[in-house]
Amino acid sequence: MPHFKITLAYDGGDYVGWQRQAAGVSIQGLVEEALGILDGREVMVAGASRTDSGVHALGQVASATIERPIDGPSLVRAVNARLPQAVRVLDAVEVPAAFHARFDARAKTYRYRVWNGDVLSPFEARYAWHAPAPRLDVAAMDAAARHFEGRHDFAAFQASGGTARSTERTIVTSRVRTADGVQAGTVPLVVYEVQGQGFLRHMVRTIVGTLVEVGRGRRAPEWAADVLGSRDRARTGQTAPALGLFLVRVDYE
Amino acid sequence: MPHFKITLAYDGGDYVGWQRQAAGVSIQGLVEEALGILDGREVMVAGASRTDSGVHALGQVASATIERPIDGPSLVRAVNARLPQAVRVLDAVEVPAAFHARFDARAKTYRYRVWNGDVLSPFEARYAWHAPAPRLDVAAMDAAARHFEGRHDFAAFQASGGTARSTERTIVTSRVRTADGVQAGTVPLVVYEVQGQGFLRHMVRTIVGTLVEVGRGRRAPEWAADVLGSRDRARTGQTAPALGLFLVRVDYE
Repeated sequence: MPHFKITLAYDGGDYVGWQRQAAGVSIQGLVEEALGILDGREVMVAGASRTDSGVHALGQVASATIERPIDGPSLVRAVNARLPQAVRVLDAVEVPAAFHARFDARAKTYRYRVWNGDVLSPFEARYAWHAPAPRLDVAAMDAAARHFEGRHDFAAFQASGGTARSTERTIVTSRVRTADGVQAGTVPLVVYEVQGQGFLRHMVRTIVGTLVEVGRGRRAPEWAADVLGSRDRARTGQTAPALGLFLVRVDYE
Repeated sequence: MPHFKITLAYDGGDYVGWQRQAAGVSIQGLVEEALGILDGREVMVAGASRTDSGVHALGQVASATIERPIDGPSLVRAVNARLPQAVRVLDAVEVPAAFHARFDARAKTYRYRVWNGDVLSPFEARYAWHAPAPRLDVAAMDAAARHFEGRHDFAAFQASGGTARSTERTIVTSRVRTADGVQAGTVPLVVYEVQGQGFLRHMVRTIVGTLVEVGRGRRAPEWAADVLGSRDRARTGQTAPALGLFLVRVDYE
């Protein structure tokens, strides 16, 4: 019975998120259904990140056991043939039976994209939060973002109703930049990228809402550290909308 | 009566193209309707390029006269408020009454995007032609593409039923490259970019179909020159699909 590490990309705009819900179409449900048809039985899939409704993935990782003998490239082709184009298996490699996409994940990287121009590009409407004038102070946002690096109690940045037993998390890097490479200076994109060992529900989006307050000049960069230290959900900025958030990568040992 | 040069971007995927048609929604129709509501009368808009159904624009240019006194930034805001998000006015500047977006255009730049990976990214499905294996020979495609530079009779690359009086056109640059900048080496994108004084109907897409034949190794780069010289529509490659084509820019004196 081969056990697989499966890497996926998806446009989450039309789905209820990774995890199966009582109503609506989930990415997990689509993948389990496609694998179930392939294997002729019910297949359960564990995802590294429970991306929320509307959140996208460039490199989500899932694990699943298939009873039928099959190799990775054949699995990729067979499953993609049964998935909508918005959800794609990029890669499937056989791994030891003990591998679990969520419990074995060492780090996850998320990217959040903010469109800071007056007119939102038609090609960004599904993939960036439109925050028009004032011009965001990217250096101030980056200074604020760095306060989140290290091990902290992120209780202030948890979704109301969050149920995590501990709200301490370790963030490896937390940085804000403008578009680089060929796009440098040509598009009004502000990009937040954060890598950490784990995240609370809505944590990245609440951090982004807080950073945008700083970028707009309403708060100094040090305010981010104050909010973090307060552990008070009422003190953060707004929760940035889901559509700008991408799960970029999941790292393992 | 201010006369405007209007720059637009649009995702053409859900429209019948720039030009008004008997049936279906056109970009021109949407813009004329939005300007008509603004001006309280029927407004006619001239577009630099009659982009086909499904073709996108990063920088289409149109001209129109508005009777009501209004400045450029106000026009941008008012028109965008009445357009769907897929169509955006990026800029509007007042120009002399004689300016005509189509007749005064000196050069147009188009870009065509080919996704040459086995698995088509969910984020490229609307914006690139999926040409999976074999791996395209980008250097051979570029060598073929350069045969189109200069003044030539492009009769072989005109849509069947094309009605242009002359099929001679001048191409300034015609080049093929892989993704560059931050995406270099990370995505299997092959990009064709062509700048010319004018184009026949389907010319860019027929050139791309021909270049992909070369990229797949079925033909040598010199074949592109043979097809061009033959003026025979039956000898070209297939017409590449509309969804990979972008009108990038229109240049004026």
